[in-house]
Amino acid sequence: MKRPDWLEKEQLRSVIFDVDTPAGRRFDVVLIIAIAVSLVILFVESNPSLPHWLKLTLGVLEGVLTVLFTVEYVARLYCAEDRRGYALSGWGIIDLLAVLPPYLTFFLPGARYLLILRSIRFIRIFRIFRLFSFLNEGELLLKAIGRSIHKIAVYFLFVFVLVICLGTLMFIIESGQPDSAFRDIGASIYWAITTLSTVGYGDITPSTPLGRLLSSFIMLLGYTLIAVPGGIVTASFINTTDEPVRNGRCPRCDAKVRKGDRYCSQCGEKL
Amino acid sequence: MKRPDWLEKEQLRSVIFDVDTPAGRRFDVVLIIAIAVSLVILFVESNPSLPHWLKLTLGVLEGVLTVLFTVEYVARLYCAEDRRGYALSGWGIIDLLAVLPPYLTFFLPGARYLLILRSIRFIRIFRIFRLFSFLNEGELLLKAIGRSIHKIAVYFLFVFVLVICLGTLMFIIESGQPDSAFRDIGASIYWAITTLSTVGYGDITPSTPLGRLLSSFIMLLGYTLIAVPGGIVTASFINTTDEPVRNGRCPRCDAKVRKGDRYCSQCGEKL
Amino acid sequence: MKRPDWLEKEQLRSVIFDVDTPAGRRFDVVLIIAIAVSLVILFVESNPSLPHWLKLTLGVLEGVLTVLFTVEYVARLYCAEDRRGYALSGWGIIDLLAVLPPYLTFFLPGARYLLILRSIRFIRIFRIFRLFSFLNEGELLLKAIGRSIHKIAVYFLFVFVLVICLGTLMFIIESGQPDSAFRDIGASIYWAITTLSTVGYGDITPSTPLGRLLSSFIMLLGYTLIAVPGGIVTASFINTTDEPVRNGRCPRCDAKVRKGDRYCSQCGEKL
Amino acid sequence: MKRPDWLEKEQLRSVIFDVDTPAGRRFDVVLIIAIAVSLVILFVESNPSLPHWLKLTLGVLEGVLTVLFTVEYVARLYCAEDRRGYALSGWGIIDLLAVLPPYLTFFLPGARYLLILRSIRFIRIFRIFRLFSFLNEGELLLKAIGRSIHKIAVYFLFVFVLVICLGTLMFIIESGQPDSAFRDIGASIYWAITTLSTVGYGDITPSTPLGRLLSSFIMLLGYTLIAVPGGIVTASFINTTDEPVRNGRCPRCDAKVRKGDRYCSQCGEKL
Repeated sequence: MKRPDWLEKEQLRSVIFDVDTPAGRRFDVVLIIAIAVSLVILFVESNPSLPHWLKLTLGVLEGVLTVLFTVEYVARLYCAEDRRGYALSGWGIIDLLAVLPPYLTFFLPGARYLLILRSIRFIRIFRIFRLFSFLNEGELLLKAIGRSIHKIAVYFLFVFVLVICLGTLMFIIESGQPDSAFRDIGASIYWAITTLSTVGYGDITPSTPLGRLLSSFIMLLGYTLIAVPGGIVTASFINTTDEPVRNGRCPRCDAKVRKGDRYCSQCGEKL
Repeated sequence: MKRPDWLEKEQLRSVIFDVDTPAGRRFDVVLIIAIAVSLVILFVESNPSLPHWLKLTLGVLEGVLTVLFTVEYVARLYCAEDRRGYALSGWGIIDLLAVLPPYLTFFLPGARYLLILRSIRFIRIFRIFRLFSFLNEGELLLKAIGRSIHKIAVYFLFVFVLVICLGTLMFIIESGQPDSAFRDIGASIYWAITTLSTVGYGDITPSTPLGRLLSSFIMLLGYTLIAVPGGIVTASFINTTDEPVRNGRCPRCDAKVRKGDRYCSQCGEKL
Repeated sequence: MKRPDWLEKEQLRSVIFDVDTPAGRRFDVVLIIAIAVSLVILFVESNPSLPHWLKLTLGVLEGVLTVLFTVEYVARLYCAEDRRGYALSGWGIIDLLAVLPPYLTFFLPGARYLLILRSIRFIRIFRIFRLFSFLNEGELLLKAIGRSIHKIAVYFLFVFVLVICLGTLMFIIESGQPDSAFRDIGASIYWAITTLSTVGYGDITPSTPLGRLLSSFIMLLGYTLIAVPGGIVTASFINTTDEPVRNGRCPRCDAKVRKGDRYCSQCGEKL
Repeated sequence: MKRPDWLEKEQLRSVIFDVDTPAGRRFDVVLIIAIAVSLVILFVESNPSLPHWLKLTLGVLEGVLTVLFTVEYVARLYCAEDRRGYALSGWGIIDLLAVLPPYLTFFLPGARYLLILRSIRFIRIFRIFRLFSFLNEGELLLKAIGRSIHKIAVYFLFVFVLVICLGTLMFIIESGQPDSAFRDIGASIYWAITTLSTVGYGDITPSTPLGRLLSSFIMLLGYTLIAVPGGIVTASFINTTDEPVRNGRCPRCDAKVRKGDRYCSQCGEKL
């Protein structure tokens, strides 16, 4: 007996992994809808005051989706050219994690921490990128950020040391007040980050004149410091489009050589 | 009997549609004032605790303005060169929407959703642009944003996935607290967006040390991520004003050649 | 009888108006200190719960300073080369306004609005700029902002229309709630500005799921829109330092010509 | 009797001051861990509601760390090439300050202000920079900020004058309300800074329509003004990485010549 067409490994692979064929595109659309629905279920289920019938309906829907995702995972595993490679790749692990949680719930009922496992399912939405020409843009973005990662790390270390010093200072100033929200240095550092990042919840606020003076200083500092990562990333973006030769050096004098130079600017050597 | 001058189609058209003639400019000024007044009426009427006489006065004023806008709409329709084209164009539909709401109120009194229809009237204020030389600037703005729309879309998708993950994580951490404001994942995601965008209302705030630690991380992330659209738009702005051809060089003198150049700007070589 | 040296008009003028002489610099320092002291007095006096003796002391100090500023104003008027010109110039009016308020208080005691007149005294601190080499930098700043004023105006008009539409929309969504802080459209627009600008006081916050969804959208919009003035100003700053010839055009074909070009890039004409 | 190897001055110096040797790197790692542990102790101790046994444990741990830091300081002093120079250098003073506080506590028990002295210990974490290639990046950052310090100072002076004027204006508008949080001009200026910097705690908010109008204006101003330091720093960053000599050109081929070039990079001409 001949196996039906859609079980042919080659064709199945083309449906699941390709984005250029109509079938592959339709498969991706169905997958995205399924992921979105499962996320909505996740969000609605988190509400503690649901009526019983809705809880039941959502549970059934979730079961159906879990079966679907399981079938998809098995199908991917079945028709992958390199099964072991797929299973151990980033996407393969995400696919597995997206399927596992509901099964785990059988053994560990009520486990709240499974929520996070289920939210992993959403990471699969990144696959949608394949449908767009977005990939190049995304790569450029990451490249621009990657090129300035050192500068940003120094900046963050600076901000980190700053909020620890300012938080401690504020604790000293404000903790003497009765009913102060600056209970310990941890809370003060949390407040300093809230203020420096210009978020400003208002759950912890200074009440002494000196505390308000220091706050004002931190606010204006944060208002200005926000320019630094902006400057780093922007400069990086602009330089990404107009990039000098990396590590290009003159073979005679080892001076830096720029893209487009035909003679070394230090020793006159022809390049 | 000869029709009065101002009813001549040609002249009426010049008054309504032109901005270069004194009459056209005066017409625009009157229109802008009428729109502004109708908006102020809209805002004042929204206050539920108005005295009765004020309500009445505003109602009468609104009626007068509605008649005015109706006359204007009919006049535009009457003297448009392509009536069907005007009626179905973006501005034509806005003009109609600006006139319809009060008439609809006769049939559907108390309909609160008409407020939004009335606010559409304000979109007409964009016509004022014709008076200024702003148009080129606005186009440049839109062009710069349009050129980076792909990058911004990727960025938003990234932020979207991020706040969903962080919101879910925060729900897991904070929802165990008594009287927690993190009631469901929806509220948690709302909180994550509030925090990441550095708005920080303070209606939902973390109370556990772990929640505050994660908050601090999100704040600093948001404080830095804000640099990315800035970098994208700025790079786009700079490139819009001064765009060189990538690696384009003169074959004779090797000087940089810009897009659209037909002769080398350094040696005069024909390209 | 010979008048004392310091009353000589020439010398007095050099002391008051010059910043290059030691005497002129000393005069400026004394003036700055007097202005700062009078501001501190202003701030302390605003506190309603002051002890009586402090109120009295401050009143006396303020009187002394007022006499000093009056003497300075008269001296400036006396030794100015063009008295009428000085009296009607921006600085002359500020100097007069800085002197007048205490005298007006005699006639209009308790007039709260004099506070603002007194705060005008602070504008004089800008004179300190003359002491620094800051002037060029300040001019560059203003020049960069001035060059992009058209773009910023368009941006503001866009933000203005946006917050009116979003505020009205939010009023429709939220005003149905009991005890809603969205009392009228004015409050809703105030809230929309608070949110879009990422300030986020938290005195008005959405409580319905739909309201929170719209808020999230506004926050992310504001988070991104903040990039636009940044892009405008930054591009302007960069272009200020590396400015192409304005309106430089080829005499033969009228194409744009850049700084440093020796041949027209469109027709090959030698420039 | 021969002194043990690790007491040899030369070797000890290499361990303490070098980062290239394995021993020196291990020493730095131990030092960083010790600093981090002492900071965690500092933060936990600040919590007023600690159980007695934990207070005791932390006290003992702190004592051990103090002994360690003392030994390290003495060792540094012992093996420094220029002892006096080290003791009076920035790092030397920080090292001393990091050791002194616990000893001072013996004489001044309960002195809360020692917290800040202890937090100085953290400044030593900056030494970690030696391990990374971060130094160049950090220098570039400081150089870029240093180059624009004049512009930023002018900007800050402008913001400073602005918040004083706006705070005073807001005090006049809002202070008449019963139970207003705008108690004095100091509080109003604090509010103006909170608003302009887009922090927006919400502990002080306007309640009058006029106050809200002025607030809206300040928010939009702050939302736009934030672009100015961004523009300054970004322009500075871009100019730091790629600084051409203004109008510097090769006398033979007229190609652009960069600062420090000794030969034209296009034709090899000696400059």
